[in-house]
Amino acid sequence: MALFSPMNTALSEAAKAAERGEVPVGAVLVHRSTVIAQSGNRIVELSDPTAHAELLVIRMGCALLDNPRLQECDLYVTLEPCAMCAQAISFARIRRLYFGAYDVKGGGVENGPRLFQQPTCHHRPEVVGGISEKECAEMLQAFFKERR
Amino acid sequence: MALFSPMNTALSEAAKAAERGEVPVGAVLVHRSTVIAQSGNRIVELSDPTAHAELLVIRMGCALLDNPRLQECDLYVTLEPCAMCAQAISFARIRRLYFGAYDVKGGGVENGPRLFQQPTCHHRPEVVGGISEKECAEMLQAFFKERR
Repeated sequence: MALFSPMNTALSEAAKAAERGEVPVGAVLVHRSTVIAQSGNRIVELSDPTAHAELLVIRMGCALLDNPRLQECDLYVTLEPCAMCAQAISFARIRRLYFGAYDVKGGGVENGPRLFQQPTCHHRPEVVGGISEKECAEMLQAFFKERR
Repeated sequence: MALFSPMNTALSEAAKAAERGEVPVGAVLVHRSTVIAQSGNRIVELSDPTAHAELLVIRMGCALLDNPRLQECDLYVTLEPCAMCAQAISFARIRRLYFGAYDVKGGGVENGPRLFQQPTCHHRPEVVGGISEKECAEMLQAFFKERR
């Protein structure tokens, strides 16, 4: 296991989200090798359909750095971001996006609208999908299996 | 002029945004014929790239109604929503979207990724574009002309 593994932190945020009854997705924002924000989904907790883990860490990071642009930041998230989060990642000028499981139904990066491949997309982060894919996907599968 | 004109309220929020140095876009959320939230862009003010007028009124409306779904709500916004806001509108189950100016470069509804036309989009609001289009577009043009 890597010494510095933001995806493991994202996975632990996803696990805590599941305990709160949220779809288990976790995200971590890294600025110059330091984790500056981490969160799981908080949609139910906040009654906020925009409270996806990615949007929350972007907002936390921007507030912390007092800057709406996060050019030196990388985002780690356990699930492929949706179109809302992908567009926010682009607006925030995130440098690299690392995600875990692919999301055929709800993803907006490698699936659906493929936001970063749109000609109107101004900033495209480097994208690496499939990081700790198995653990990320299994956590989601276990959550939905229990609820069925 | 209509007696009940939420788009005029959205336009006045856009004008206030311009005074704060924000791109002049305003939004209004209507629940059962009552305005329950209104805002302009607050990206600069909050150092938050997600602080688009639409996202702000959706979050305000959900907090007010203590519900992440706004099935009986209509959204009025002076500019065609971007992909981030369009996806949030879909997640929030907004009933109808009325927008002013079309946005060829940044829009995500009738331009770019056309979010609501994606097969993976679960909820599509009714969409009416071009409401008070001239006033909405002129406010944006005046803002950018002054900054050039």
